[in-house]
Amino acid sequence: MYFGACYYAEQWPEERWERDISLMREAGFNLVRLTEFAWNKIERSEGQFTFDWLDRLIEMFGSAGIQVILGTPTASPPKWIMDRHPDMYKRDMYGHVRGFGTRMHYCFNNADYPSYIRKLVGAMTERYKNNANVIGWQIDNEFGCVDTTWCYCDTCKAAFQGWLKRKYSTIDALNESWGTVVWNNMYNSFEEIETPKLTVYQLHNPGYQLDFRRFSSEAVCRFQDIQIGIIRSAAPHQKITHNMMGTFNEIDYYKLAKPLDISGLDVYANFPDNEPINPYTPALHHDMTRGFKQANYWVLEHQSGTPGAHILKVTPKPGELRRWTYQSIAHGADALLYFRWRTAVAGAEQHWHGILQHSGVPGRKYDEVRQVGAELAKLAPHLDGSIVCNQAAIIRCFDNDWVFDIQPHNPGYKYLRQVKNYHRYFIEKHTGVDVVSPTADFTKYNFIILPHLALVDDALADKIYRYVEIGGTVVMDFRAGAKLPDNRMRSEVLPGPFKKLLGIEIDDYGIIPEGESQQLQFLDGKGVSSAGYASSIWYDVVDNKTAEVVAEFTSDYFAECPAVTCNAYGKGKAYYIATELDASARTRLLDRICKETGALPEWNVDHPLVEVTVRRREEQNIYFVLNHSNDLVSFTPPTGSVNLFTDEPLATEVELEPNGVLVFSNSLV
Amino acid sequence: MYFGACYYAEQWPEERWERDISLMREAGFNLVRLTEFAWNKIERSEGQFTFDWLDRLIEMFGSAGIQVILGTPTASPPKWIMDRHPDMYKRDMYGHVRGFGTRMHYCFNNADYPSYIRKLVGAMTERYKNNANVIGWQIDNEFGCVDTTWCYCDTCKAAFQGWLKRKYSTIDALNESWGTVVWNNMYNSFEEIETPKLTVYQLHNPGYQLDFRRFSSEAVCRFQDIQIGIIRSAAPHQKITHNMMGTFNEIDYYKLAKPLDISGLDVYANFPDNEPINPYTPALHHDMTRGFKQANYWVLEHQSGTPGAHILKVTPKPGELRRWTYQSIAHGADALLYFRWRTAVAGAEQHWHGILQHSGVPGRKYDEVRQVGAELAKLAPHLDGSIVCNQAAIIRCFDNDWVFDIQPHNPGYKYLRQVKNYHRYFIEKHTGVDVVSPTADFTKYNFIILPHLALVDDALADKIYRYVEIGGTVVMDFRAGAKLPDNRMRSEVLPGPFKKLLGIEIDDYGIIPEGESQQLQFLDGKGVSSAGYASSIWYDVVDNKTAEVVAEFTSDYFAECPAVTCNAYGKGKAYYIATELDASARTRLLDRICKETGALPEWNVDHPLVEVTVRRREEQNIYFVLNHSNDLVSFTPPTGSVNLFTDEPLATEVELEPNGVLVFSNSLV
Amino acid sequence: MYFGACYYAEQWPEERWERDISLMREAGFNLVRLTEFAWNKIERSEGQFTFDWLDRLIEMFGSAGIQVILGTPTASPPKWIMDRHPDMYKRDMYGHVRGFGTRMHYCFNNADYPSYIRKLVGAMTERYKNNANVIGWQIDNEFGCVDTTWCYCDTCKAAFQGWLKRKYSTIDALNESWGTVVWNNMYNSFEEIETPKLTVYQLHNPGYQLDFRRFSSEAVCRFQDIQIGIIRSAAPHQKITHNMMGTFNEIDYYKLAKPLDISGLDVYANFPDNEPINPYTPALHHDMTRGFKQANYWVLEHQSGTPGAHILKVTPKPGELRRWTYQSIAHGADALLYFRWRTAVAGAEQHWHGILQHSGVPGRKYDEVRQVGAELAKLAPHLDGSIVCNQAAIIRCFDNDWVFDIQPHNPGYKYLRQVKNYHRYFIEKHTGVDVVSPTADFTKYNFIILPHLALVDDALADKIYRYVEIGGTVVMDFRAGAKLPDNRMRSEVLPGPFKKLLGIEIDDYGIIPEGESQQLQFLDGKGVSSAGYASSIWYDVVDNKTAEVVAEFTSDYFAECPAVTCNAYGKGKAYYIATELDASARTRLLDRICKETGALPEWNVDHPLVEVTVRRREEQNIYFVLNHSNDLVSFTPPTGSVNLFTDEPLATEVELEPNGVLVFSNSLV
Repeated sequence: MYFGACYYAEQWPEERWERDISLMREAGFNLVRLTEFAWNKIERSEGQFTFDWLDRLIEMFGSAGIQVILGTPTASPPKWIMDRHPDMYKRDMYGHVRGFGTRMHYCFNNADYPSYIRKLVGAMTERYKNNANVIGWQIDNEFGCVDTTWCYCDTCKAAFQGWLKRKYSTIDALNESWGTVVWNNMYNSFEEIETPKLTVYQLHNPGYQLDFRRFSSEAVCRFQDIQIGIIRSAAPHQKITHNMMGTFNEIDYYKLAKPLDISGLDVYANFPDNEPINPYTPALHHDMTRGFKQANYWVLEHQSGTPGAHILKVTPKPGELRRWTYQSIAHGADALLYFRWRTAVAGAEQHWHGILQHSGVPGRKYDEVRQVGAELAKLAPHLDGSIVCNQAAIIRCFDNDWVFDIQPHNPGYKYLRQVKNYHRYFIEKHTGVDVVSPTADFTKYNFIILPHLALVDDALADKIYRYVEIGGTVVMDFRAGAKLPDNRMRSEVLPGPFKKLLGIEIDDYGIIPEGESQQLQFLDGKGVSSAGYASSIWYDVVDNKTAEVVAEFTSDYFAECPAVTCNAYGKGKAYYIATELDASARTRLLDRICKETGALPEWNVDHPLVEVTVRRREEQNIYFVLNHSNDLVSFTPPTGSVNLFTDEPLATEVELEPNGVLVFSNSLV
Repeated sequence: MYFGACYYAEQWPEERWERDISLMREAGFNLVRLTEFAWNKIERSEGQFTFDWLDRLIEMFGSAGIQVILGTPTASPPKWIMDRHPDMYKRDMYGHVRGFGTRMHYCFNNADYPSYIRKLVGAMTERYKNNANVIGWQIDNEFGCVDTTWCYCDTCKAAFQGWLKRKYSTIDALNESWGTVVWNNMYNSFEEIETPKLTVYQLHNPGYQLDFRRFSSEAVCRFQDIQIGIIRSAAPHQKITHNMMGTFNEIDYYKLAKPLDISGLDVYANFPDNEPINPYTPALHHDMTRGFKQANYWVLEHQSGTPGAHILKVTPKPGELRRWTYQSIAHGADALLYFRWRTAVAGAEQHWHGILQHSGVPGRKYDEVRQVGAELAKLAPHLDGSIVCNQAAIIRCFDNDWVFDIQPHNPGYKYLRQVKNYHRYFIEKHTGVDVVSPTADFTKYNFIILPHLALVDDALADKIYRYVEIGGTVVMDFRAGAKLPDNRMRSEVLPGPFKKLLGIEIDDYGIIPEGESQQLQFLDGKGVSSAGYASSIWYDVVDNKTAEVVAEFTSDYFAECPAVTCNAYGKGKAYYIATELDASARTRLLDRICKETGALPEWNVDHPLVEVTVRRREEQNIYFVLNHSNDLVSFTPPTGSVNLFTDEPLATEVELEPNGVLVFSNSLV
Repeated sequence: MYFGACYYAEQWPEERWERDISLMREAGFNLVRLTEFAWNKIERSEGQFTFDWLDRLIEMFGSAGIQVILGTPTASPPKWIMDRHPDMYKRDMYGHVRGFGTRMHYCFNNADYPSYIRKLVGAMTERYKNNANVIGWQIDNEFGCVDTTWCYCDTCKAAFQGWLKRKYSTIDALNESWGTVVWNNMYNSFEEIETPKLTVYQLHNPGYQLDFRRFSSEAVCRFQDIQIGIIRSAAPHQKITHNMMGTFNEIDYYKLAKPLDISGLDVYANFPDNEPINPYTPALHHDMTRGFKQANYWVLEHQSGTPGAHILKVTPKPGELRRWTYQSIAHGADALLYFRWRTAVAGAEQHWHGILQHSGVPGRKYDEVRQVGAELAKLAPHLDGSIVCNQAAIIRCFDNDWVFDIQPHNPGYKYLRQVKNYHRYFIEKHTGVDVVSPTADFTKYNFIILPHLALVDDALADKIYRYVEIGGTVVMDFRAGAKLPDNRMRSEVLPGPFKKLLGIEIDDYGIIPEGESQQLQFLDGKGVSSAGYASSIWYDVVDNKTAEVVAEFTSDYFAECPAVTCNAYGKGKAYYIATELDASARTRLLDRICKETGALPEWNVDHPLVEVTVRRREEQNIYFVLNHSNDLVSFTPPTGSVNLFTDEPLATEVELEPNGVLVFSNSLV
């Protein structure tokens, strides 16, 4: 288990380094991330490299038993490069230059930038490839953050044209695939195609938009590959990672993560996205990141205090940092670096707080981190080699996420809203769930949920049929099978290729406007009351052919039409949900499916805000119990459990205070 | 009566055409609109025309008894033209190019575009001028839609300068008219004048803004004239129309409609403008369109299902399409084409639903349309030659609509809000009303309402005086007479030229802020209670000279001042409303005026959401009763009425279910 | 006392002038402002000056006993200049030209503009320097209004680079001061530095942003200096002023006002900033303006009716104009000009109403103004030489205002919100308060409030220490001492340099999110109940060292930590407020401090919306009592008071109706 922080040594006087490293050692650190934005400190003018300060720094860390990840500082190319190549700046859809002054200002497709990168990263790897204290490299920083995946410059236009040419070969194939005959948008050559910049009104062709998103995502991957190539060839024994952003959806993270040795995650629980702080969203970040390579991962940035720039987010209360730290580990983090060691006194992120405040004096956050460090020293041997294994999976598909970004259907609707809804059920029920790619092996799972699988190719449709045929259970929902891979609608009755699998047909559908809902009842005779459920966002008017009707609408002109169906197919089952269920209906339905498929927690605590997670290795189960609530919660652990903080056996009744964390193991250990 | 759909044959494989045409024939279609966006399908490269597919298509329709309107596909010039003439793109007020990818991307004043149009439209008319199955032409598509009336490119700047030179002759006349002495904005030559693009803050001179709107509206008319000229000279026997957008206010539709043979309307009841779906707004679209040429009109696009692009609007319930269809006919539509036959599988409007869903399989909407088709076969002989005749009119003035766009007075206020308020009264009371131009013959009407006649020239003022003098009744309201035709304020006591007519003077006034209201009482002694009325938006402090005070304010410092006055003038009456009345006060006032002037329905149903409308010919009155409510409504029809769907006499008591439609005639038939 | 209006003679036919001047004379006017936007009327083409109309006009005013201030019409350079120098236009942060059509379209740093100004203003001063009826000059108009302080053109870039070079000498000093090492934003030369225009996301370095604001503010001052130089050298005996905008914060008004002879204010009580109309905001405008030079001032524009452009603000009710007029005088205005004499019939401000409506006919506003004129004739001898003297001051610091604009900390938070909160207390309590610069002499005051003194240099910190040492009382609040003068955070424990003065230390803090609050109790044992107070925006977790705890938090993890402290230091006291107190807590605290320091009103009326203000001269106190409420208020004036409108002694019990104004003097007069 790696534990430490991001350290911006170049921002502080060298005489301070010793004090900082000494405090880190006392806190139990064994890893730091360095140099992520230090280009000018290494190369102030072209080809003039200065490594002595970094040599000294790495040496000092080595002496303190702390290893190092180096960040390649390519996220912010220096002004002296930009002034030489003004066309390196990104441009927005209006054609405005997105100029210097922050970061991520370079275009991923620019032809001049790679030579500078090769020189810099080449020099860095040459210098540190044999340094035993340097265990790996983080490439760039949060690709795509602050709206930087898409660029509308002329270089990108040409690159996009080339990408399209390779994909479609002929312009007629492209015209056919996008359906440019609509509104007379046909092209006569690839050279006629622009980036989807400002037009009369922002309703570009959906196929065109989807291809631009695919092209842009791949451009980032290609950009990353340049650095992977440099490092891999020079230092094949050092790990390569990138700090991804969990639910961020502009880049296909499955593709970005593929050539990496290990996935990296930046996670800030107190910087949630337009919602109250809650445990479900960071849990989803973690489960998604574990899914990018279906393996444990590193948290490269973990909140260490109040996040914020010109405004501040909510300050974590005493005990909160520790709780979120353990949530990370519980979900599969094998490394955890706090961002950042000490709060910057300058720059836009003056209010992005580190473990130490601006003063550099250790305070309550340092004490809390040091406590975690001491605890991890005890836990580490148990965690070593342990992994997270689950029986259910949510299939998260970037193409379909983009389909809904391009066409939300209902105002403000998002593909990830549905993913979040399903995922939350599992967290609340303490049932582990994976979030994996459509290319993952489905047969590892008892059941899989395929949210909003509108766009689907034949291969994936076949794979789903085969999975159910041999006994798998699938859950699909509205818009399933509606689209071809090129984002055209299928010219067939819904749910397109899934008619037989799901045993239903759909001719009619519509949105449920914001603030309105439709009523449902369950027909399966279980539970207290079958009525009183509601739904929103969408309805399909399902014509049931061969399925069991699990629930039906009881309102509007489609009253008595199925809202949820279950079709037996082969040895398996295929569920269809024709609307967005409310939480109680979703819970009732997933309870049934989990029970049917045996995707149940081994052990439970009866509180929706107490999270229970398991890491496993050999015969050992390591349970993490996190009290995210404001309640004092008491529960009965499995017999024979051992508290891994104390090595003491657990009492029959255990109490956990708010922010409380318990890590215990079954008796085998 | 024409009945059919918009058919985008070019979007579907030719082998499908026969099936589609066969389904259309079964649905009772006798008209389709074609080729509106098919430029590339006709002319893929300059001068290379391909008509054989269209020949075949028109021939197939002819064989099925279905006639054709051809759309000139100039709303979306092909990329091969745009690439040759990049200055053909519109520019926004910041100078940004509004580029390719949707439609309406051309500048109306561009000098290069007309030659391409002449070639294309010339070839089309040459080809089809003698085709008996082609009854007419729709020019372009929804001029001005998606914010395309105004362009800020250099061509428009030069054209605007020319327009101003023609209008003002000397720059001093322009300076005087706009009052450029204010803020020192005086010009020394026409060449100094820009389009009203980005300035320090968007408070351009009101006269300048109004002239730019007039210039832009006329530019669209001139652009349309090019095509009218081509078609008229080649095919004088074929009808020419354009699909206008009802309440759309950027183009003076009276001027645009003038050279057309018939007005066209696109109407989508389920795509209302920031309000719940309601019958009043589409009714206003219809009445306005009938007013553009004071004649019956064609509905060139009528909703055929869920409207939508990236988001979907509300899906029409069973029976809704039929109800809206009859509303169109009831208000004077002599043709009705659904948009569109089948839902597009590609392009931005994948969710703009046709009669058929993407699958092409007939469903509930097709069944409903087919029912209407069968009914219309019975109704058509009765409708033939019938028109809508009303005793009251609302005078809708584009100049004043623009005056309020430029200066809303109260935040978010709109000229059309007041028009809508007045119009709604008539719909609720089942009293027919026309919406016509200030240039219309007022003497046809018992009374006219002149909403917000702020800007007025002497000729119109005189015309109004003369109308009242000979016995007409006029209703005017706040800001009447405040402005000169050049959008300067008049340097005289309000209501300017109408002081004598209205018998009042106004020195003081103000807005009523959002969320506040003022209280009123009626003084005419009628009605249950004279108090308890309220008003909003505006108040005038009226100094009554010779009028009757109909209602007075009872709140604020202007309590006891008149809120509504009625001045006897000549043989007529002139009402003035000094505020925006609430619905009950408006109803009370208009009830009085309708009664005084005899503008009353011949027959009535006591439900505000049941619409009753009449078309007349010779001695026959054709009544349309539409149940827009969710109630089962029962009523007593006039004695001797005959149901035109069944030719049966009506019972004494008739019941109409929600979405129900009844069309009956007096006994003469 | 000067009394009059802004007169745009050039907007009206010359034959009207006589009537206007006659009406003005009847209203008691003795001053008008002329020519503020009359450039073209004076110089229609380069060097061709026309003064005869202005000669006649000034002569006519002179004959009527009305003196003149001339406005230099540089706020709106004519189109003929702009067309010659298109780079004179301001550019926005996207690079868009902010073009012609309104005003303030010129760049303050442009090199070509000054020569035109020298010719125009030179000619004007030459013409009128010896005209006895011209008492002074207003330079330009409302510098910075409508978002014009900042310009992003290339000229400004070069000027900014020069300014930085002068400030920092070396680029390394700049890099150090801004902390550009963060995000690798280091510069190698001053020529690399851009204006803070569009970047990837708008989080420019805080030091960079602050310097750009300082540079931009100084650019305006330098621009003003050009004209001051011209006028001063030609006409040293004529007064120079500029119409500032009270709480407007983009220009450091202390610096702008310094070279002026007298501060000017434009004040529109009915055009409040996103809040209901209230007396506190205009009172703050007045007190701030008096503070710019710590002297009486001129109101160069005072509302004369409904303000508005495309929308109208609320119309002042009868009596309102008079009430606001007296508020101006009560706070120290020695001149008051209504804006404007007559409402413009053209231009963007057609709805910015003058004393006369568009018609030019005198109405209720004229009558009210004439009443004031008559009253002022009686009051003027008393007011002559009288000033406002207070015992308490709020220190308003532009640097810190900008610090919070750049980093609001809590969404939407503003430095001026806190200033407004403190200031309102004094108005409600009828205790006079000054609002002055950090450079003011603190020792004049019994106590001073230093809101949000985050950024502070050593000199100011020392000055505060010395002030308290000799017996002064200071009130400081959250973020005090957090920042260095270059907008970096201090690398020390909070409150930085004030630890000893305040007797506290702070390690932990955070925002209180919108809609939430924290609870407080007072520990000083006074008042009805010590609990029940709340706070918002921010909390510090105060570690009390030597202070008295005045109030403490009773909620959240910092319950029992101090919320308000008072530290005895030297002969004085230093209060610290760790949060934004609610109104009742603020009142309770300031009541205590006012009592301790003797900053109490001499006499009082028990109504928070009745304002009581005092101007003093020699032994005479002139009391202004303004009833801003809707209540009939009765009160007991000090014995022996004399009504200055009537010269009658006041009764024991006086009644004041809504909008009522009473001005009385102590018996000495």
